[in-house]
Amino acid sequence: MPLDQVSKRLAPQFQHVEGSLIKKIAARATSRSISLAGGLPHESTFVFRGVTWEMDDGSTLTLKNRALTGGTEAEDGAAELPLNYMQGSGMPELCGELRAHMQRYHTPAYDDWAVIPTTGSTDALTKCFQLLMPPPGKKPIILSESLVWAAALAIAAPLGYEVRGLELDSDGMLPSALDVACRQLASEGERAAFLYLTPHGQNPTGTSLSPQRKRDLYALAQEHDLIIVEDDPYRLLFLPADPEETGEAAMPGVMGLPKSLLSVDTDGRVIHLESLSKWVCPGLRLGWLTAPKAFVEGAYRKWNELTIQFPCTVSQSVFCAMLRAWGQEGLDRHLRRLQVHYAKQRRVMHLAARRHLQGLAIWDLPKAGMFILFKVPALKGKGKAETDSVLEELLAEDVLMVPGYAFDPSPEKAAEPAFRATYATASPEKIEEGIARFGKAVARLTEGMKEERAEEKTVPVMD
Amino acid sequence: MPLDQVSKRLAPQFQHVEGSLIKKIAARATSRSISLAGGLPHESTFVFRGVTWEMDDGSTLTLKNRALTGGTEAEDGAAELPLNYMQGSGMPELCGELRAHMQRYHTPAYDDWAVIPTTGSTDALTKCFQLLMPPPGKKPIILSESLVWAAALAIAAPLGYEVRGLELDSDGMLPSALDVACRQLASEGERAAFLYLTPHGQNPTGTSLSPQRKRDLYALAQEHDLIIVEDDPYRLLFLPADPEETGEAAMPGVMGLPKSLLSVDTDGRVIHLESLSKWVCPGLRLGWLTAPKAFVEGAYRKWNELTIQFPCTVSQSVFCAMLRAWGQEGLDRHLRRLQVHYAKQRRVMHLAARRHLQGLAIWDLPKAGMFILFKVPALKGKGKAETDSVLEELLAEDVLMVPGYAFDPSPEKAAEPAFRATYATASPEKIEEGIARFGKAVARLTEGMKEERAEEKTVPVMD
Repeated sequence: MPLDQVSKRLAPQFQHVEGSLIKKIAARATSRSISLAGGLPHESTFVFRGVTWEMDDGSTLTLKNRALTGGTEAEDGAAELPLNYMQGSGMPELCGELRAHMQRYHTPAYDDWAVIPTTGSTDALTKCFQLLMPPPGKKPIILSESLVWAAALAIAAPLGYEVRGLELDSDGMLPSALDVACRQLASEGERAAFLYLTPHGQNPTGTSLSPQRKRDLYALAQEHDLIIVEDDPYRLLFLPADPEETGEAAMPGVMGLPKSLLSVDTDGRVIHLESLSKWVCPGLRLGWLTAPKAFVEGAYRKWNELTIQFPCTVSQSVFCAMLRAWGQEGLDRHLRRLQVHYAKQRRVMHLAARRHLQGLAIWDLPKAGMFILFKVPALKGKGKAETDSVLEELLAEDVLMVPGYAFDPSPEKAAEPAFRATYATASPEKIEEGIARFGKAVARLTEGMKEERAEEKTVPVMD
Repeated sequence: MPLDQVSKRLAPQFQHVEGSLIKKIAARATSRSISLAGGLPHESTFVFRGVTWEMDDGSTLTLKNRALTGGTEAEDGAAELPLNYMQGSGMPELCGELRAHMQRYHTPAYDDWAVIPTTGSTDALTKCFQLLMPPPGKKPIILSESLVWAAALAIAAPLGYEVRGLELDSDGMLPSALDVACRQLASEGERAAFLYLTPHGQNPTGTSLSPQRKRDLYALAQEHDLIIVEDDPYRLLFLPADPEETGEAAMPGVMGLPKSLLSVDTDGRVIHLESLSKWVCPGLRLGWLTAPKAFVEGAYRKWNELTIQFPCTVSQSVFCAMLRAWGQEGLDRHLRRLQVHYAKQRRVMHLAARRHLQGLAIWDLPKAGMFILFKVPALKGKGKAETDSVLEELLAEDVLMVPGYAFDPSPEKAAEPAFRATYATASPEKIEEGIARFGKAVARLTEGMKEERAEEKTVPVMD
């Protein structure tokens, strides 16, 4: 009996997604076959002979369309550039690399898991949300953090999901909050379709789950039979605990990274999403999903084939060639360089905040990722309009930040007022200046509120 | 008032898809801005300096990540390789090229239309099916051809659509059949969510709509207020009427192609889908959608941003560079070469069928595309099992073809028994041999049925 809690929770309409008869017939092809079945265009008509990538370290990766160039990798050292249709399960060579990567760096705690390339985690997430929709008559409910990646909320809305946010501390989601929420749902005769969380460098709060917290949340997921969708784009941007550490040697590289929830998943109840966007580039539109094999090779692959078919083969093949060319050493070198960039940027923002936001905002140093959430106590208990007035003032001064309510799943937008700032891209000078202007805007607001209070006091009582 | 019938028919949950607040804030960036808003990774961390494509004609196209290489296109002739996040509306330079292409070769009959790059027509189609879902309480019904591209049926199923197939002749869907179906629906208190059709080289029947047929169907769409989803991947594979014509000069090239339904759309009720898969390659996962501007820039773009975000930027940028490098002359040259390939292959299969299938199968010479549908009169009135026995016999003889019922939208699978064969890829020798074996399998079936009838006759009447 394969370990697969996920497939038990498939939406009714996805429990019997038909595999393509044409693909089934095509799969019966042998070397002797005369295939007049699949509508595959002839590779000799494709316009590309091949592609050569120039890498940041000066090396090159060449991939060839063998239908036009002939030859083999052994002869000319160039890998295959697949350009035709392929199965929804993706390029086999890439899947092999990804499986080895997951085995080495995440070591799932059960055997029957599988990987599948995605066209980025946004699409993969939407597919998971669709595939895990509860049957009619049951409320579609997602449990998540108190502030949630805005795109996940935007995906949930048209699909009809209600998202309930759970309290966090600096170690991430509180197990007690999860337990209470599950019991509350049970008392309503409902249960969550799944728990959606970002374990490392959560967007927007910057929090990361401690190893103990991961174990505790997983134990609760078992107790309440919860599926977990683990969206993990920032794990590779894990940073040293000390904000002053910005040297390569202090970085976690690839071996010093924390393990995901997958590493404690003994039941097959975690769907893990990884993206290339934050550590290779967003443009490739590539990521991968790891989950119980029956789910990956069944409903997910089939829904893939009816939508994107498969991720861009140019992206798949160059990423596969990169992983092979890098090996563990090259991957470690690349990640350290990347982590140094983010550690330096984080330090700049953290120091700027210490200079300009004392008494005006509170924040946690993020352990991973690219965001700091600045909470503004002066706005506490005030409405969205007060937050917007700070936002407008910032925009008028050419500083772009995102108000916390953009990430608030509650209809009342009642979460603590805050602003999310990213240290990913701006220059140190701009970060310094942006945070300084943010401090001034908050200070003016605080002054304004003091004056208002003073005015209120001096208003004569009329009757 | 913009011409946009499509947006009036949006599913309730997509009528108010929120644009991303973060993207709205990001859009307010100016050259003076200090952006701490969007979670864009820094381009200097991307691993690619650039990419060089070797084209089939020996030319090269180089694109560069300017964050790493510096310089400009004017200095080194290389176009930009965008690798970061972009808006769901796609790469502006590519959109400009696509708009010019559509204006030149399709000339939509109204002004307020727009294009958007898709990650292939399968994904675009699924999105259209989702966006045009009727409100609860109304049956989701699609009108389409009597045999329909199998993937479209497979997409329709989990979304809950019923697909009603309408009769075709050699000029495509019969207007009378469409009229009757619409009236029938009206009498049931229902109406079709949309009409889904493939105007050129329909898969699997190979039929193409004549110009008059397009006008007639469009007039009926107006009369019954139907939205039309026009899936048009095979138009560029339009071929000469005479199967013996296989020379470049006889090919339509780019200027001799028929126009799509878009060219008669005066109301903004057509969504037109184009794919690169059949004339560039499937691997790029790229196509584009043309439809009323408000729909394209509103619901479609927003749903794009919540799923795929945008198609692979490597695909978008190389396709843009190709279109610019080709111009009309290069596009024409490429299409003629492609059309010659398909015309030669079509001729081989047509002649093989004339040799081996006389009296056993009937077929129309396809005007476009890559498929011939062989109808088998001997199977008429027999069940799916009889078709499967021919299929199994073919598979046992290493010939892969697809039974017609794979494309039949009716639950009874009552369409005329047939097999679809593609002439796209197999060598002339294999096509000849495959069709010969198909003929033998059908002949054996016919013999078997004669014997059965003979046996039936000799069975003594028992009572």
